Amino acid sequence: MKTRVSFSNASCDYYFDTSARRLEELVPRAKTVLVTDEHVFAHHQALFGDWNTIVLKPGEQYKVQETVNAIIDQLLDFEADRSWWIVGVGGGVITDLTGYVAGIYMRGLQFGFIPTSILAMVDASIGGKNGIDVGIYKNMVGLIRQPSFLLYDIDLLKSLPESEWINGMAEVIKHACIKDAPMFKLLEENTLAKLKRDKALLAQLIRRNALLKTKVVQADEFEQGERKLLNFGHTLGHAIENMYDLPHGHAVSIGMTVACHLSARLTGFTQTERVVDVLEKYGLPTYAVFDVDKAWDILKMDKKRAADAMNYILLNKIGQGIIQSIPLEGLQSLLIEFVTS
Amino acid sequence: MKTRVSFSNASCDYYFDTSARRLEELVPRAKTVLVTDEHVFAHHQALFGDWNTIVLKPGEQYKVQETVNAIIDQLLDFEADRSWWIVGVGGGVITDLTGYVAGIYMRGLQFGFIPTSILAMVDASIGGKNGIDVGIYKNMVGLIRQPSFLLYDIDLLKSLPESEWINGMAEVIKHACIKDAPMFKLLEENTLAKLKRDKALLAQLIRRNALLKTKVVQADEFEQGERKLLNFGHTLGHAIENMYDLPHGHAVSIGMTVACHLSARLTGFTQTERVVDVLEKYGLPTYAVFDVDKAWDILKMDKKRAADAMNYILLNKIGQGIIQSIPLEGLQSLLIEFVTS
Ligand SMILES: NC(=O)c1ccc[n+]([C@@H]2O[C@H](COP(=O)([O-])OP(=O)(O)OC[C@H]3O[C@@H](n4cnc5c(N)ncnc54)[C@H](O)[C@@H]3O)[C@@H](O)[C@H]2O)c1
Ligand SMILES: NC(=O)c1ccc[n+]([C@@H]2O[C@H](COP(=O)([O-])OP(=O)(O)OC[C@H]3O[C@@H](n4cnc5c(N)ncnc54)[C@H](O)[C@@H]3O)[C@@H](O)[C@H]2O)c1
Ligand SMILES: [Zn+2]
Ligand SMILES: [Zn+2]
Repeated sequence: MKTRVSFSNASCDYYFDTSARRLEELVPRAKTVLVTDEHVFAHHQALFGDWNTIVLKPGEQYKVQETVNAIIDQLLDFEADRSWWIVGVGGGVITDLTGYVAGIYMRGLQFGFIPTSILAMVDASIGGKNGIDVGIYKNMVGLIRQPSFLLYDIDLLKSLPESEWINGMAEVIKHACIKDAPMFKLLEENTLAKLKRDKALLAQLIRRNALLKTKVVQADEFEQGERKLLNFGHTLGHAIENMYDLPHGHAVSIGMTVACHLSARLTGFTQTERVVDVLEKYGLPTYAVFDVDKAWDILKMDKKRAADAMNYILLNKIGQGIIQSIPLEGLQSLLIEFVTS
Repeated sequence: MKTRVSFSNASCDYYFDTSARRLEELVPRAKTVLVTDEHVFAHHQALFGDWNTIVLKPGEQYKVQETVNAIIDQLLDFEADRSWWIVGVGGGVITDLTGYVAGIYMRGLQFGFIPTSILAMVDASIGGKNGIDVGIYKNMVGLIRQPSFLLYDIDLLKSLPESEWINGMAEVIKHACIKDAPMFKLLEENTLAKLKRDKALLAQLIRRNALLKTKVVQADEFEQGERKLLNFGHTLGHAIENMYDLPHGHAVSIGMTVACHLSARLTGFTQTERVVDVLEKYGLPTYAVFDVDKAWDILKMDKKRAADAMNYILLNKIGQGIIQSIPLEGLQSLLIEFVTS
């Protein structure tokens, strides 16, 4: 089943709940290059069969220009020209890299994704942002360009390590918090173990999240407002992710916990406990001690702040995120209060 | 005087016959970085004054990823964010590099050009194509993205070396051949020396060429047909440019001479002598002996050909270029005939 989604200059076909094998119906095998990483390749060799394939080393540290150079060299070896397709098969690192290379090689080839991690399925492969890291700066170079298709094959998740399931669930819980109270309830009523067993439930959850992010992106393709809601938990999250080299989902989970507490003080939000319970149920850390002075120094530098206030994503209630401008001073004392309470 | 030109997803303001000083009316000085090369910088230091400036080594061999990396590092040093502008001040190498970096840094900043060579004024800065070379492959990586403005200051040409005037004139003569018989006449009636002395005449010629290329690009932004006319002289030109390391304009001039001869055989074109006379008048080579077998091997590999024919740009008459599919065999014998006649 195909769902066509329109963006301002492009459209993308989502194939939910299908098999990765269907790729051959979408692109011509002789003029397609698959890009993946060693983990995904090792677990799903049959899928790659005799497709032209570029296999990269796995991990965020390879989401850099040197890898882009290596991909381009291999595309030249394949004699790929403007009529070819590039298809990223992997987690968010692979989809970010693949989308970027597809945008610049010969000034742009057509491309699609087969996301293989929860995070890539519900977040990274959606919205058209792609790119690479430059030194300490994440996603400093890139483009916005929509893939032509997304192919969802739930079975690919069978090989995903537990830690990556947990990472991905942080974004799922984020989506529920800012936009979807019924989904929050569904998360409360289930467990990760249950989701892994119940394929239909999992497929439905993935689709719901993919469409939720899609809707937010469509409503605000150029990131003026609405789309900022997706940063729930991410402002402080990014700071402590870098400080302590935390897994992204863990950092975001702690960030969401803090944001709930700020919300309690600033919007009258009363459901912090339910959010914390769900986060912990899915294996994520919540109350964490962190160096608030250092985190504050990083936050202050954030380019997203105006002169003496900062846009922060808070909750009015579960399922209803809002963007609120918080004066820097007030924000600092609330953070200190959180860590010392 | 401003001319606003619309492309499918963008518009660009052309400021003809103005002063580069007017840049300060277009962009905020504190949030702008100028990108130029050592030659242009040395000759026009006053123009750069206290603008944030990145000065690159000159030449095509620096139109590569390493230079892009260096520009990005300097943008980070300036703490340039998404609200900044990048302005390329230079020849086609600088405009290609600047447009590309502006497209990928932080997923895209606004940018404009102040072209300083004839070639950049009439050709390279127009149409939104940008990019870099990869190994032996020219312009293998890049984007299509329109600048927000083009600022034309004829006085900048005073420092342009004679050889670069001649290079640029090859594209001017190309434009006249494919699209503009009255301009061809104007070129016949003048000389390069006269153009250099007569600022009003030069300004008018530059504007006419810039608008001619603009119109062709607008009519065919995605290079399905019309835009291919701009390849007049370039198919064979590129082959011999690489074989003998010729200046681009020289190679294109020889390519146009050959294309005139092919036209005489295939379209009944009768004005080869006038084209050759104009090329030579502006200092360009025409009849040249080249290794036709080697050139043929390169041409055959050209991705633009269909299975056993090749699209070639010919002239019906001066001012009227056409795209013609020529069977490979016939083309080969015509080339051999040209070189041995
Ligand atoms: N473009 C966007 O809008 C966007 C949004 C969010 C995140 N991202 C990016 O996504 C990246 C994180 O995504 P991620 O967590 O998927 O990272 P990832 O691609 O590094 O995948 C995580 C790990 O799981 C492995 N893996 C993936 N699928 C597997 C499978 N089916 N079986 C076995 N192993 C598998 C990978 O090899 C890797 O080791 C970051 O670089 C982030 O910047 C982008
Ligand atoms: N993007 C496009 O559509 C397009 C079209 C045609 C050509 N190009 C590109 O343009 C490049 C060629 O352009 P170019 O010939 O301007 O090359 P260039 O930028 O190398 O300039 C030629 C030489 O002239 C010098 N120069 C330029 N302006 C000067 C001035 N005012 N005073 C003194 N010296 C000056 C430069 O330093 C250089 O040494 C190639 O890389 C080609 O691929 C791009
Ligand atoms: Zn995230
Ligand atoms: Zn040219």
